[in-house]
Amino acid sequence: MAATGNLQVLLRSRPAGIPQAGDFEIVDSALPQVCERQFLVRNEYLSVEPAMRGWVSAVANYSAPVAIGEVMRAFAAGTVVASRHPDYAEGDRVMGKFGWQLYALSDGSDVTRKVRETDLPLSLSLGVLGLNGVTAYFGLLEKGEPRPGDTVVVSTAAGAVGSAVGQIARIMGCRTVGITGGETKARLCRDDFGYDVAIDYKGETDMAAAVATACPNGVDVYFDNTSGRISDAVLTQLAPGARIVICGTASIASWDPPPLGPRVERHILVKRARMSGFLVFDYAHRYEEAVTRLANWVRAGALKYREDIADGIDHCPGAIAELYRGDNLGKKLIRLAVA
Amino acid sequence: MAATGNLQVLLRSRPAGIPQAGDFEIVDSALPQVCERQFLVRNEYLSVEPAMRGWVSAVANYSAPVAIGEVMRAFAAGTVVASRHPDYAEGDRVMGKFGWQLYALSDGSDVTRKVRETDLPLSLSLGVLGLNGVTAYFGLLEKGEPRPGDTVVVSTAAGAVGSAVGQIARIMGCRTVGITGGETKARLCRDDFGYDVAIDYKGETDMAAAVATACPNGVDVYFDNTSGRISDAVLTQLAPGARIVICGTASIASWDPPPLGPRVERHILVKRARMSGFLVFDYAHRYEEAVTRLANWVRAGALKYREDIADGIDHCPGAIAELYRGDNLGKKLIRLAVA
Repeated sequence: MAATGNLQVLLRSRPAGIPQAGDFEIVDSALPQVCERQFLVRNEYLSVEPAMRGWVSAVANYSAPVAIGEVMRAFAAGTVVASRHPDYAEGDRVMGKFGWQLYALSDGSDVTRKVRETDLPLSLSLGVLGLNGVTAYFGLLEKGEPRPGDTVVVSTAAGAVGSAVGQIARIMGCRTVGITGGETKARLCRDDFGYDVAIDYKGETDMAAAVATACPNGVDVYFDNTSGRISDAVLTQLAPGARIVICGTASIASWDPPPLGPRVERHILVKRARMSGFLVFDYAHRYEEAVTRLANWVRAGALKYREDIADGIDHCPGAIAELYRGDNLGKKLIRLAVA
Repeated sequence: MAATGNLQVLLRSRPAGIPQAGDFEIVDSALPQVCERQFLVRNEYLSVEPAMRGWVSAVANYSAPVAIGEVMRAFAAGTVVASRHPDYAEGDRVMGKFGWQLYALSDGSDVTRKVRETDLPLSLSLGVLGLNGVTAYFGLLEKGEPRPGDTVVVSTAAGAVGSAVGQIARIMGCRTVGITGGETKARLCRDDFGYDVAIDYKGETDMAAAVATACPNGVDVYFDNTSGRISDAVLTQLAPGARIVICGTASIASWDPPPLGPRVERHILVKRARMSGFLVFDYAHRYEEAVTRLANWVRAGALKYREDIADGIDHCPGAIAELYRGDNLGKKLIRLAVA
């Protein structure tokens, strides 16, 4: 273990909408002492994800907001470099809520899982084999209930979750339609992620017409990560018995107060549709089941992924805002140089 | 069979919102000839229901809109007075889509069911033992999935559907909260329909606070017949895993274009709630199952009902508008004098 300090990214101010670089500061802290039943993780990859906006928001959410002056909550993957815990040995690869920092002291309660896929890159445990892939897996299969021949529409189709949703739907025998922003991502959807149709919402003036053309028999499953005008358009094109999975609301800058949109009840009623909220943590007990299947699909080449990796903790503060601008192509990660 | 003509209520003009008296006209037509495999029904009760607004609307719905000049589509209950059909005998009591008219010629395709509960009034086949009761039964049990101890909130709680929903929820061991308009109906909810709490939305300035007070542990099931500001309030008070049943949208005068409201996705997501559209006709094959149970509850005094009966076909044209004004206390019916 190198005798350096611990670089940490702290929340400095509470953002009103999307967190910006100025809402964080990087500090150099003392390396923590490892006590009995604790261990130290040297992070190699830090995750950046849309949910982080919620984690720093003052509006009630799944968990208490990150406090001002606290290390920014984040998933990370690394290696155990010192341990006084019976279940964790030096050299173990782990993924968990270790925060945006170089070293994390853990008692095991913040560990999501040990990463046992030693034949695959560690970074995948934060993306296609991490919360993103597991979200896609359970969100689509449990809430979307895709059937062979169904038309499955995915918003943020080229994103870390969306690209996995589209590919899993294809593996399940569905026709897949991806909605994404920009021609580069639309091409990625078609060429890398196998969508039958990709719609560039930035290039469409009439989204409802574009969805109608792409889905002549209506939308059986809509996996939604955006809300906003994309959803408004898709909801006009539901097939009878459609399933809508609400996984994220990336297009809405602030829910306080909730923005207005066209009321959805008539679509839901007339089409006997079902709109379900999905949170991956409800499926924590089935995590390994999902990772096992996802890893096999990755090995077989049926499930492709992309990563957008920046080197150095200096990239953390601005990373959430970059994510919401949609600049990244693939799962957004920060790589920390291994000492 | 009396040798009179056939009084019929025809649709005269296509209403933009809620159908008004002037949108209909009453004509005296010739009595139809009964051909082979046909029979004639003498209607005794004509039904008035919220869905009628949809039936005359030009906006796409479950079925083709009633054409101008056509007899107004309606459920009715009556007696077979002449038959050349092997399955229907003179004296049979039937309920079906016989329209707003005195006599209906039928080939059986518009019959919902033969009314076999001879110990109970025929009018119940249009209310608590008709589409209203069956809607409450399947909507609540199949889409709402109430569990003992759940808090069930019902909008239009004193209405023909809502009052049955509240009572069935109570039979299932739930705590029931009814939302209704006016102190008279609120009292009806508490005294006749056994709601634990009744909220008069007309007397509340802060509906969300009223729902929060009535539901300290949140709303597990919301059976919605209204949409609009009542739903907006209830949706802020969902319990985790809440089920929302969209059965009707009575508070929305027109869906063309859809009105704006606070976006629901965040509530659905954070509470992992489920919003399902319900249409009773999807459960047509299980109609007798529901009526059998409902009739037993009525006989046992566990399921109470109210009827609001007007005498004479002249009451038909203005009846839908009256229903939407909420003037009626109980299932709204028109009774036709038996010849």
